[in-house]
Amino acid sequence: MKKIAVLGSTGSIGTQTLEIVRTNQDIKVTALAAGNNIELLEQQIREFSPKVVAVWKEERAKELKEKIRDLDVKVLCGMDGLLAVAAEPEAEILVTAIVGMIGILPTIEAIRAGKDIALANKETLVTAGHIIIPLAKKMGVSILPVDSEHSAIFQSLQGGQEKALHKILLTASGGPFRGKKREELQNIRVEDALKHPNWAMGRKITIDSSTMVNKGLEVIEAKWLFGVDVDQIQVVVQPQSIIHSMVEYKDGAVIAQLGTPDMKLPIQYALYYPERRFLPGDRLDFAALSQITFEKPDMETFYGLKLAYEAGRTGGSLPTVLNAANERAVAMFLDRKIKYLQIPEIIQACMEAHKNIPSPTVEEILKTEQATYEFIKNRW
Amino acid sequence: MKKIAVLGSTGSIGTQTLEIVRTNQDIKVTALAAGNNIELLEQQIREFSPKVVAVWKEERAKELKEKIRDLDVKVLCGMDGLLAVAAEPEAEILVTAIVGMIGILPTIEAIRAGKDIALANKETLVTAGHIIIPLAKKMGVSILPVDSEHSAIFQSLQGGQEKALHKILLTASGGPFRGKKREELQNIRVEDALKHPNWAMGRKITIDSSTMVNKGLEVIEAKWLFGVDVDQIQVVVQPQSIIHSMVEYKDGAVIAQLGTPDMKLPIQYALYYPERRFLPGDRLDFAALSQITFEKPDMETFYGLKLAYEAGRTGGSLPTVLNAANERAVAMFLDRKIKYLQIPEIIQACMEAHKNIPSPTVEEILKTEQATYEFIKNRW
Repeated sequence: MKKIAVLGSTGSIGTQTLEIVRTNQDIKVTALAAGNNIELLEQQIREFSPKVVAVWKEERAKELKEKIRDLDVKVLCGMDGLLAVAAEPEAEILVTAIVGMIGILPTIEAIRAGKDIALANKETLVTAGHIIIPLAKKMGVSILPVDSEHSAIFQSLQGGQEKALHKILLTASGGPFRGKKREELQNIRVEDALKHPNWAMGRKITIDSSTMVNKGLEVIEAKWLFGVDVDQIQVVVQPQSIIHSMVEYKDGAVIAQLGTPDMKLPIQYALYYPERRFLPGDRLDFAALSQITFEKPDMETFYGLKLAYEAGRTGGSLPTVLNAANERAVAMFLDRKIKYLQIPEIIQACMEAHKNIPSPTVEEILKTEQATYEFIKNRW
Repeated sequence: MKKIAVLGSTGSIGTQTLEIVRTNQDIKVTALAAGNNIELLEQQIREFSPKVVAVWKEERAKELKEKIRDLDVKVLCGMDGLLAVAAEPEAEILVTAIVGMIGILPTIEAIRAGKDIALANKETLVTAGHIIIPLAKKMGVSILPVDSEHSAIFQSLQGGQEKALHKILLTASGGPFRGKKREELQNIRVEDALKHPNWAMGRKITIDSSTMVNKGLEVIEAKWLFGVDVDQIQVVVQPQSIIHSMVEYKDGAVIAQLGTPDMKLPIQYALYYPERRFLPGDRLDFAALSQITFEKPDMETFYGLKLAYEAGRTGGSLPTVLNAANERAVAMFLDRKIKYLQIPEIIQACMEAHKNIPSPTVEEILKTEQATYEFIKNRW
């Protein structure tokens, strides 16, 4: 019996993680944490019987306590709640499906407690990779990527020799505005940017896909996960999202993982790694899919990607600035307070104004985030 | 220092194997066997200093002996020569780059002598897989595929679990007549059939590619190499020959190996397995290649492929009949004695006339080959 804890159980990755638990008889959920959707969390508690749950806001935690007073479940709140879920003693794997830099401290807590991490929180490695990766090595725990692209790279590296890796080919759909030039993006509305061609995802990540900032964050994540320089990572636009990513070895052989766009595959692979189990769902039908095309990314139009390479190359606190600026800019765009093309503009301005801290502590990372928010608040 | 022996050193795979030896400083060639090209063999002997060499015909062996009387090299001939090269005591790997069923006995000899086999001889597994594979297991030796497709499957299976394999996706270029219907192939000339779209290969295999019988032989080989049923092997036409083959796991993940059409990659991979080394040569440039397309194979037009599935499914001596009939029919076509469409007709007629031997000995396999030749000689 495998035991897992899930941070962000009511979100897209969280609910899909629980679907996998539902179809397998040998995983037990010991702890769950959610943001504010206590109605769904209550259902999850009744179905999966965790021992500990956490809700972000205190008043929502109180409401939940009331709803499940018939059950013997500990209900916590705030960061203490997240840390308790992350370190729940029985769990072997923590699924970090929470969004934002809020995921960093619980991830560190779980690694310190010796748990493997099924990582779906992008910010953890983007901002604190230099802390997380050495700590995981020291504690002997695995960081198992849940992102579709990173899982594909991880799968493609199985059985290969680390020292023979030449480069990583990170695929990108190119988003809904692929092929457009900057001047054509001036009047993009929120509705347009929310139409992703292949993947059904949350609003923030869908916008990030359209600007290719998402791909940039993935480049920085891949650098940490696979121990390579950002310049060993090449983004390849593959609009059909069939090839989830590839690696090229020194001898020129390219190993790729292909599949349908179903996040349950990387989630299940991380939970049972290195075992592969049957997963219900569609399979690739090569005769039906007819073609896979490739393009170079347009880093002039989608220069958020170029900024991410710059942040990844420089390291330190700069990736935190990129991430925080992007997060705030996307929120402002979704609130219709700024125009679409201001998203990379704001990121660039924040990066230019920042004085880099070469190897920031978690505290400095969180301070950098706040400082970036302040900077944006004062200027836009 | 790795030590290898090469059967078929003057052919396409043989010379490329020696190119790899030339660029690496840590492989030593201990034995070489060639057909009749003693001029090239002499050069190879002078460059690589093997201890034993074999030439098929006795008079050619005598000529060679004369040419290299200044050297301390043993020169043998006939099947005894091939067996001596195959079992040369110092070699750890035997590269079987010889063409035809003549490769079976030396391969068995090498396995019995505990050598790993870098297998480029198709007939070995097609006709005697039921003998070779159990023998290799018993002797604890590896059968390392050198064929581009089988190497791709082998590479894609690294780090995966055997029991999680769902199917093999064997890619095919479709050959020069892809998309044509049977009636359009009536007047195909030898020159037309020798134009392969992607790979530069020998004449026989180029014709086999055009009829897709080559792919059928590969299906039977894959069955033995990877321990699957032929119906777990799906041929996918991928005309650009970029994806060299794929495997699909139970969870729906597809792992593929991609590369440029360069046989040196699978040869080097087999020689240094599991190590990957730098290999000079072109690399895939995804932005430049622009697209990969897929089609179903047309098994009505190219029904040699369907016949191979049938032979592989039935097993016994039937694959030997398929192989021998094809070999003879292709030779007759190259000699302009039969028409192009008679190739599969002859194969089918031979298969229908054959009384299958369920688990033939090597002797029975060789007899079946002769009987097939006789049958063809009497009828066409």
